[in-house]
Amino acid sequence: MAKKKVVLAFSGGLDTSFCVKYLSEECGYDVYTAIANTGGFNQEELKSIEERAYKLGAVQHATLDITQEYYQKSIKYMVFGNILRNGTYPISVSSERIFQAIAIINYAKEIGTDYVAHGSTGAGNDQVRFDLTFQILAPEIGIITPTRDMTLTREYEIEYLKKHGYTADFKKMEYSINKGLWGTSIGGKETLKSDQTLPESAYPSQMTATQSKTITLDFVKGEIAGINGKAYDNKVAAIQDLEALAAPYAIGRDMHIGDTIIGIKGRVGFEAAAPMLIIAAHKMLEKHTLTKWQQYWKDQVGTWYGMFLHEAQYLEPVMRDIEAFLDSSQQNVTGRVIIELHPYRYVLVGVESDYDLMKSDFGEYGEVNKAWSADDVKGFTKILGNQMKIFYSVQNKNKK
Amino acid sequence: MAKKKVVLAFSGGLDTSFCVKYLSEECGYDVYTAIANTGGFNQEELKSIEERAYKLGAVQHATLDITQEYYQKSIKYMVFGNILRNGTYPISVSSERIFQAIAIINYAKEIGTDYVAHGSTGAGNDQVRFDLTFQILAPEIGIITPTRDMTLTREYEIEYLKKHGYTADFKKMEYSINKGLWGTSIGGKETLKSDQTLPESAYPSQMTATQSKTITLDFVKGEIAGINGKAYDNKVAAIQDLEALAAPYAIGRDMHIGDTIIGIKGRVGFEAAAPMLIIAAHKMLEKHTLTKWQQYWKDQVGTWYGMFLHEAQYLEPVMRDIEAFLDSSQQNVTGRVIIELHPYRYVLVGVESDYDLMKSDFGEYGEVNKAWSADDVKGFTKILGNQMKIFYSVQNKNKK
Amino acid sequence: MAKKKVVLAFSGGLDTSFCVKYLSEECGYDVYTAIANTGGFNQEELKSIEERAYKLGAVQHATLDITQEYYQKSIKYMVFGNILRNGTYPISVSSERIFQAIAIINYAKEIGTDYVAHGSTGAGNDQVRFDLTFQILAPEIGIITPTRDMTLTREYEIEYLKKHGYTADFKKMEYSINKGLWGTSIGGKETLKSDQTLPESAYPSQMTATQSKTITLDFVKGEIAGINGKAYDNKVAAIQDLEALAAPYAIGRDMHIGDTIIGIKGRVGFEAAAPMLIIAAHKMLEKHTLTKWQQYWKDQVGTWYGMFLHEAQYLEPVMRDIEAFLDSSQQNVTGRVIIELHPYRYVLVGVESDYDLMKSDFGEYGEVNKAWSADDVKGFTKILGNQMKIFYSVQNKNKK
Amino acid sequence: MAKKKVVLAFSGGLDTSFCVKYLSEECGYDVYTAIANTGGFNQEELKSIEERAYKLGAVQHATLDITQEYYQKSIKYMVFGNILRNGTYPISVSSERIFQAIAIINYAKEIGTDYVAHGSTGAGNDQVRFDLTFQILAPEIGIITPTRDMTLTREYEIEYLKKHGYTADFKKMEYSINKGLWGTSIGGKETLKSDQTLPESAYPSQMTATQSKTITLDFVKGEIAGINGKAYDNKVAAIQDLEALAAPYAIGRDMHIGDTIIGIKGRVGFEAAAPMLIIAAHKMLEKHTLTKWQQYWKDQVGTWYGMFLHEAQYLEPVMRDIEAFLDSSQQNVTGRVIIELHPYRYVLVGVESDYDLMKSDFGEYGEVNKAWSADDVKGFTKILGNQMKIFYSVQNKNKK
Repeated sequence: MAKKKVVLAFSGGLDTSFCVKYLSEECGYDVYTAIANTGGFNQEELKSIEERAYKLGAVQHATLDITQEYYQKSIKYMVFGNILRNGTYPISVSSERIFQAIAIINYAKEIGTDYVAHGSTGAGNDQVRFDLTFQILAPEIGIITPTRDMTLTREYEIEYLKKHGYTADFKKMEYSINKGLWGTSIGGKETLKSDQTLPESAYPSQMTATQSKTITLDFVKGEIAGINGKAYDNKVAAIQDLEALAAPYAIGRDMHIGDTIIGIKGRVGFEAAAPMLIIAAHKMLEKHTLTKWQQYWKDQVGTWYGMFLHEAQYLEPVMRDIEAFLDSSQQNVTGRVIIELHPYRYVLVGVESDYDLMKSDFGEYGEVNKAWSADDVKGFTKILGNQMKIFYSVQNKNKK
Repeated sequence: MAKKKVVLAFSGGLDTSFCVKYLSEECGYDVYTAIANTGGFNQEELKSIEERAYKLGAVQHATLDITQEYYQKSIKYMVFGNILRNGTYPISVSSERIFQAIAIINYAKEIGTDYVAHGSTGAGNDQVRFDLTFQILAPEIGIITPTRDMTLTREYEIEYLKKHGYTADFKKMEYSINKGLWGTSIGGKETLKSDQTLPESAYPSQMTATQSKTITLDFVKGEIAGINGKAYDNKVAAIQDLEALAAPYAIGRDMHIGDTIIGIKGRVGFEAAAPMLIIAAHKMLEKHTLTKWQQYWKDQVGTWYGMFLHEAQYLEPVMRDIEAFLDSSQQNVTGRVIIELHPYRYVLVGVESDYDLMKSDFGEYGEVNKAWSADDVKGFTKILGNQMKIFYSVQNKNKK
Repeated sequence: MAKKKVVLAFSGGLDTSFCVKYLSEECGYDVYTAIANTGGFNQEELKSIEERAYKLGAVQHATLDITQEYYQKSIKYMVFGNILRNGTYPISVSSERIFQAIAIINYAKEIGTDYVAHGSTGAGNDQVRFDLTFQILAPEIGIITPTRDMTLTREYEIEYLKKHGYTADFKKMEYSINKGLWGTSIGGKETLKSDQTLPESAYPSQMTATQSKTITLDFVKGEIAGINGKAYDNKVAAIQDLEALAAPYAIGRDMHIGDTIIGIKGRVGFEAAAPMLIIAAHKMLEKHTLTKWQQYWKDQVGTWYGMFLHEAQYLEPVMRDIEAFLDSSQQNVTGRVIIELHPYRYVLVGVESDYDLMKSDFGEYGEVNKAWSADDVKGFTKILGNQMKIFYSVQNKNKK
Repeated sequence: MAKKKVVLAFSGGLDTSFCVKYLSEECGYDVYTAIANTGGFNQEELKSIEERAYKLGAVQHATLDITQEYYQKSIKYMVFGNILRNGTYPISVSSERIFQAIAIINYAKEIGTDYVAHGSTGAGNDQVRFDLTFQILAPEIGIITPTRDMTLTREYEIEYLKKHGYTADFKKMEYSINKGLWGTSIGGKETLKSDQTLPESAYPSQMTATQSKTITLDFVKGEIAGINGKAYDNKVAAIQDLEALAAPYAIGRDMHIGDTIIGIKGRVGFEAAAPMLIIAAHKMLEKHTLTKWQQYWKDQVGTWYGMFLHEAQYLEPVMRDIEAFLDSSQQNVTGRVIIELHPYRYVLVGVESDYDLMKSDFGEYGEVNKAWSADDVKGFTKILGNQMKIFYSVQNKNKK
């Protein structure tokens, strides 16, 4: 009888390395490892992960490059929506998990496996992201999660792997660091308490810039399109180049305190120089090019979009409806944003845009204008106050 | 026949000085000057304004101190709501105008005048704030606005005053600066364009701090209650002391790009060290002490509250309903927030609170926990995905 | 060793009758039965339920009368918020479950039991309402649900009871009917399909009225306070009397199609003459007495309140914040509403209220008015259009 | 010197008839009359209006047929959004005004006139709809409104026309009736008070149906596509045929109490059999085919869309963004809705749809299901309650 097949979301770390051996040795499955790269890994890292997979006994290993798809389907909308969870966090790693889960389950359906496996623990959000996405897109494929189901120590896993002939350098890191295209999350120690923040040394990118610098970011219909005058068709490259430019300023660091999908509160540090600059610049450009009510409603639907993206509900059809709204809203969000980079901070200088609603022949703030008269404003105010005037007159009548 | 009486909102500046003379000389009114102080003026400044009023020929001058009322009715709720207009601006000066307008019109009703006058021009928001408030609270009192109605130059006004025997030092400032308890706004030059920001020198508070410092802010039911362990019953004093402490770090500077009540876009720079620290600290404390949905709905109603406060609609009865919501939401927002001050920036270190929902016996983020099992999360995820599973199964059935 | 104690939410129906026997015979517990009456049962029914409990072997039976509490904590706010789920359903039975669950768990804590049990099945919303409320208010008390855990047929349960010496008339009803103070729900047959509605005969209240009738409802600060001029301090009595008056008109029937807490869609018929009339009349009175923005925001928070109430989240603290908002909003919702009752339908005739914002000295719709001029409206419109004028002028400039 | 040209929005009524004469005789303009038909007029009526125009001395008269455009740009979205203002009114006449204004101003730009004129008075909403639309789309064209600016009596206008050789039958109607494709509004007498409703005789459509009837409406992607099995490509024809079918049942009558753009409250009666049936049927179909959150967000943006449409802000760019959202949401809103028509009321029987989320293999409401177990729901509930459990445990700890 043919062995059952399982696709394992494989990162090369201790938990998923254990899973390869466990699923083949204990469960007797053919293990197909797969890594879905959303831009967090370089070629060398991917190569090394592949080698580990085969060394551990994977029947086949697949590297699924979904970086461009991740940009098109997620980063783009996070920028359109100026999405910072709780006003702070650019949903760095959590948005990537969804697209990794989609790529993994599609791969599993493609090669026709019985099971799909992931190495998430039972304490965080990632398990929900993987489970939910797998179940929705392939209810017929079973989900296996050895790490979650058995409560195993690092020592046990290392020992088990050694016993089965596999050794590797599984360093216990001081912090758990997750590097992605849209930011890097840093958890551990201080983030487990409420009253401390990460030390300087915990951040992968250190402050090395020696002097302040002024840069420009160009946007076309809401998308990043240029840095310092250089045009980018490849938006992923633009993000990576901006990160390289800005990370030495230690910009975009903060601590996210959030509500997890499973209802408890958690803290996580992050650094995300490029995402923070792009979102801040984009938002400033919108303040100049969108009407008040466009901004109001973008905030409404954007906040929800960020929440659902974070909370594993990317596949909810309302997300497609919100994306249609966001797409529509970006028609005029075109122009250049000027930014000063300083150590640990940045200053938004201003914008240049043909769609700037401030630059009109129409009347400028604080100046005498040609488009309306003092009497017009008096009439405006009179009518604007009508309902309140009626309300207070009724109040007064009833007081008597 | 008795002269008609007018109450004039008087600041001692050129426009309102002109108004005193104009209203008495040209219109033949008895001019009652009044200044409503929301915390932006000190005793010396108020004294000097009073002297100017009498020198200009005011029949009577009144100094209306509404600082505590302004805190109780406005600042408190701006903190409860974490209100930053457009995500940036702590509604510094605009919220004060409303309470000044209320104090002025109440004073006019008290002394029984025929008219009330203000010196706002026809180009900005303040005229709407004054007109609307006056009309709603005293529709029977006429509104006079000489500066708005006649288009006068500085030179003309100075000349007119001189002709009527009044001279004073009306310096033309490079920037128009409005100092208030809840922040200082700075307009002029760069703020009239889209592509520039204010130079360092434009800010009244200069960076003079020589080293970083850690401070603590205590909150009780959402209100600032202590600084560095010292308790404050007088919240206004707390704000002033925090401002003195933090302003030398040049913290809380930014540029607000906003939509005015009359529909055009405008930019204004500001510095607001204490407001920005208090709001940021308060918001972080809420992230630890409120549930996800409390935060979600506070954002919804708070955003609207800020908009209406800014746009002269403070008297709308819905504002009272939102205040009731905000009051209710602050029951557990009690604790200490630790903050590092650095030149031009601050770092929120963390919080200590008996109401911290992260500090429970319940299960901690990222850790194996006692309150639920892996199977519970599996069940949760299964049910959570039900509607989407049904949706996609229906989609697939229809594709065939 | 002392027997363990369990409190069972007991309705006298087959499932919970089975549970009494099962929990005492098979589990060896002392079974304390309790029924929490929210107004759906009369004294005779309660008496009969008590007799059944003792006959089945309950150690003790308690009748918890929470009708007034249910009005004060739930119906009142459903009226304030004009709450109709999905625009249709007055959340009749589901809101009662929450308060029954609270009463049951508080009783269990009071008498100090080890367990609490309910008879809900695994397919509906009620299980979540009971479980969630029990867990939140008494995490230390275990939850037992025999009906959900074992998949038992009616026949098996009847046989088991007979074997243990208990027989009763457990009629299989054509429809499952749940009568409550705030409406009666009717499920079965047609409600299990999408394309049919309930037949006339399925409704407990039949159309017997022979002629149309005009009635009046008085409200004081949003609460029902009188019917046809007769004042009611006891709001529960008012609801019951109005139901008696209106039910013969077969008013307030409809079908609710909703999303259950567990993600599937379900249909349920209902009749709720008094709730529908009270909500409709209250809403009409609000249209006359509240400002536009009060109505807008009441809809926002009311919709959420109804959703969370329905979905077992009554204990979420945000619900208390919304209640504070709703309380505040009702200050002026005082007046009389005139209604015509016709067979199967009603007509809202109008309102009489001292707080009617339409009845002012101020200017009436469609009439030439004294409070503003044509020029005022022209000015208003000019300023109101400013941002759009700028937007379109910028659009046109960019088209060229 | 050439005469100045004015385009006048002409309805053939007394006010606009007066305007033709006034603008040519007193102002010396060449008057170009135009009527924009959104479906409220038939060919005969349009013909008669044209004759009046020429008889009054119009240089040229234009009949602009924008019925299909009105459906495509407005009715379609009002159905997608289930838009009933204040939960009651299908925005019948007010939405037509906007499209009439757009057609008129575009015609004025096309023929190159100096002015555009309308006959609205200074008391209602229509003046704002015309002024705002004219100003935004053609700020260079002056607006003339004789009826608003001069306060003229009917008698004066009739006399003036007679003096200039024009007589016609300007009957003073008991009620002011506005017939449109999307409903007929009825104002006057009772609608000017708060406590009365329109008498039966005030409605243009009288109840003449002798027996109840069951009909079906088909929808394809949210649009009406069939009646009683007959397919309609022409949606306008479908609306008209449904109106003919349902109006004899006197369905869709109600009273709208609303806040006008200028801040006062007003009442207006209406009858709108087809609009009410289409919206009710569409909404029921959505309850079956959309997810909970799609419905939630559609309500949010739809309510706003209706408000802005009603309040003359159709041209706000956020409206285009909301339309994109609504378009996206309708992908699955396809199916048949069954409705019973009775005198003065209707009953929504049910729906048949391939996209019905209730008809799945997945588990049905109230039935034991295959897709999840009792334990899954227990796990779901446990996790769902986490945050509240933590909240109450923290509350209890602090009480001690």
